Amino acid sequence: MAMQSFAQQQLGQRPRVTSPVINTDGSVTFNFYDPTAQKVSVSGDFEEIRNRRLEMQKGENGVWSVTTQPLNPELYSYSISVDGQRFIDPANSYVNRDISTLSNIFIVSKEQGDKGSLYAVNDVPHGTLSRVWYDSPTLGTQRRMTVYLPPTYDGKKAFPVLYLLHGHGGDETAWGDLGRASQILDNLIAQGKAVPMIVVMPNGNPPCDAAPGWWHAGMYVPDGNAFNQLGAKASMEESFMDIVNWVDKHYKTIKKRSGRAVTGLSMGGGHTFGISYRYPQTFDYYGLQSAAGRVKRNDAQFDQQMATLFASKPKLYWIAIGKEDFLMQMNTELRQYLDEHHYPYEYYENDGGHIWRNWRIYLTLFAQKIFKD
Amino acid sequence: MAMQSFAQQQLGQRPRVTSPVINTDGSVTFNFYDPTAQKVSVSGDFEEIRNRRLEMQKGENGVWSVTTQPLNPELYSYSISVDGQRFIDPANSYVNRDISTLSNIFIVSKEQGDKGSLYAVNDVPHGTLSRVWYDSPTLGTQRRMTVYLPPTYDGKKAFPVLYLLHGHGGDETAWGDLGRASQILDNLIAQGKAVPMIVVMPNGNPPCDAAPGWWHAGMYVPDGNAFNQLGAKASMEESFMDIVNWVDKHYKTIKKRSGRAVTGLSMGGGHTFGISYRYPQTFDYYGLQSAAGRVKRNDAQFDQQMATLFASKPKLYWIAIGKEDFLMQMNTELRQYLDEHHYPYEYYENDGGHIWRNWRIYLTLFAQKIFKD
Repeated sequence: MAMQSFAQQQLGQRPRVTSPVINTDGSVTFNFYDPTAQKVSVSGDFEEIRNRRLEMQKGENGVWSVTTQPLNPELYSYSISVDGQRFIDPANSYVNRDISTLSNIFIVSKEQGDKGSLYAVNDVPHGTLSRVWYDSPTLGTQRRMTVYLPPTYDGKKAFPVLYLLHGHGGDETAWGDLGRASQILDNLIAQGKAVPMIVVMPNGNPPCDAAPGWWHAGMYVPDGNAFNQLGAKASMEESFMDIVNWVDKHYKTIKKRSGRAVTGLSMGGGHTFGISYRYPQTFDYYGLQSAAGRVKRNDAQFDQQMATLFASKPKLYWIAIGKEDFLMQMNTELRQYLDEHHYPYEYYENDGGHIWRNWRIYLTLFAQKIFKD
Repeated sequence: MAMQSFAQQQLGQRPRVTSPVINTDGSVTFNFYDPTAQKVSVSGDFEEIRNRRLEMQKGENGVWSVTTQPLNPELYSYSISVDGQRFIDPANSYVNRDISTLSNIFIVSKEQGDKGSLYAVNDVPHGTLSRVWYDSPTLGTQRRMTVYLPPTYDGKKAFPVLYLLHGHGGDETAWGDLGRASQILDNLIAQGKAVPMIVVMPNGNPPCDAAPGWWHAGMYVPDGNAFNQLGAKASMEESFMDIVNWVDKHYKTIKKRSGRAVTGLSMGGGHTFGISYRYPQTFDYYGLQSAAGRVKRNDAQFDQQMATLFASKPKLYWIAIGKEDFLMQMNTELRQYLDEHHYPYEYYENDGGHIWRNWRIYLTLFAQKIFKD
């Protein structure tokens, strides 16, 4: 409240601008006030513009505007460029943080049940989203993770657990914020498309105890992956059972293989791959999303671990990737290895690259495949 | 990750700028790159500048800079003005949202135990911070609130509960984000200065089910207090026992007066005042912070309610306000009424006005006064 009135004082006669405006046909209008700027544009992840900019036109009132073509139902990210400098849209307080970059977000939804509506907060029973600290004996630290409890969780009935892992540079907030995990689960559970489940979203960077701002490093702004240089006593995969053990101790879970699934994107897909052969009878469902998971050729121990894993007949080994993903070759090599050994898996390929849009889709698909048999 | 590389593509040869830089003497340097801007300044809530701007000077590399005088330990907010337009500092991903305004934040801390350190994440046991949805039969909706569970909460031992209420325009995220409630409680509990307690931070706007972005209104950007016009079946005070009843049912609480405290700021201070005489034997500790709590003169029912409240001898009736607070007169009238009736209360007055800096201080003080006898 204090800052609001403070801001109003500063801004003087600046007109109130609404941005973005989602039009009824699904097109989106961006508005931005700046009477002195020379060039203003919008950058975003809309199909329409991909990695180029949408130039805004200046109106007489100093408000720059541009309207997109109708967009498909989706959650979109964007930022505004003013004379070459990247900014958050000052009219839109909805932002996501990805590592140390903030972007504005908005959702296009045309009808109930479409992708936009799946990512929105609807009038359905909502689960609880908690930031909890757990002890990791292997890493020798306390660490923060995010836990989703389904709406029907009451501490009495046991639920299955999905372990949901982020990518390189992400943290324990990534799947909840960028990935819309609680909205997706709330909506899928309400529609009867997913089984009610606990979702555990740990921090996959062992050198960090928590996300920026919640770690003990204060308000240090990470330079991309700088925090991965800090070093840690063990890797994510080596320390992973600390998480499973803590969750099984502190929540009412189905404490056996059929009640456990693990999936992750990019680096977290690599973690999922490593976890699959490192702990072969701990999980029944694996999901490798755009996975940084490299097959080890001419490695007898790896071959043996993979043989043990598939001899134990996991219920699902799922690989998903976009056609334009820069990790496609690595995933192709992984599938070749599985094919050579006649290890059964499911494969899902769609458009697009190494982007959150795809990971939200993969979570939606994977969540509907698990804990049903 | 996708947006990060995307941003890098856009920004081209832009130099990497670090901002803010907290210098060892407690002064703070802001840096901002913009080779074409005419005038750049910083606005913030530092004592040094109050409601005026700190002009930045342009260097040869297109980076504008300014350094403050040494600042006292505190959490500060600021934004950057570029040719009259207010922006978030693009080098600082730490932001707070107040209603629909984003501001950057940073913390100055000089030594362990100072105010800055009290608001920081330290290497102490951490409580759990959860966003939970509860049913409000009185309002006929499900609603979201934030719950802090102390580090030693295990579902077996019962803990006292502090109900912590936000002001006009705030929501269930305000005390956790702007108010640093979980950091303050973690640190006070670790230092043995506060009793381990559950802290419940509800949404004090009955027309809203949740904070912006988590409510069912989608990504609507509220215009100040517009959402208070939506209407609701009952007021916050009328529906308040729904919250207490739900908390007592779902958490291991001390379900009696000596285990309950309520405090709030501004509108939430008014709610605390109303709750105090409406439910006179439900809470033992009351904290009115910069309270919008108006005495009802010539109102026999009010007089009777207040008489009942104080006849029941609550353990603490605490009133706190800053010398420059615009609600000082209202608080003076409230204290006059209490004095006239010889109703005992404690009064705390400090510098400053109707600002979060003071509310963090008041929470720190109040949390140390409750549940100790």
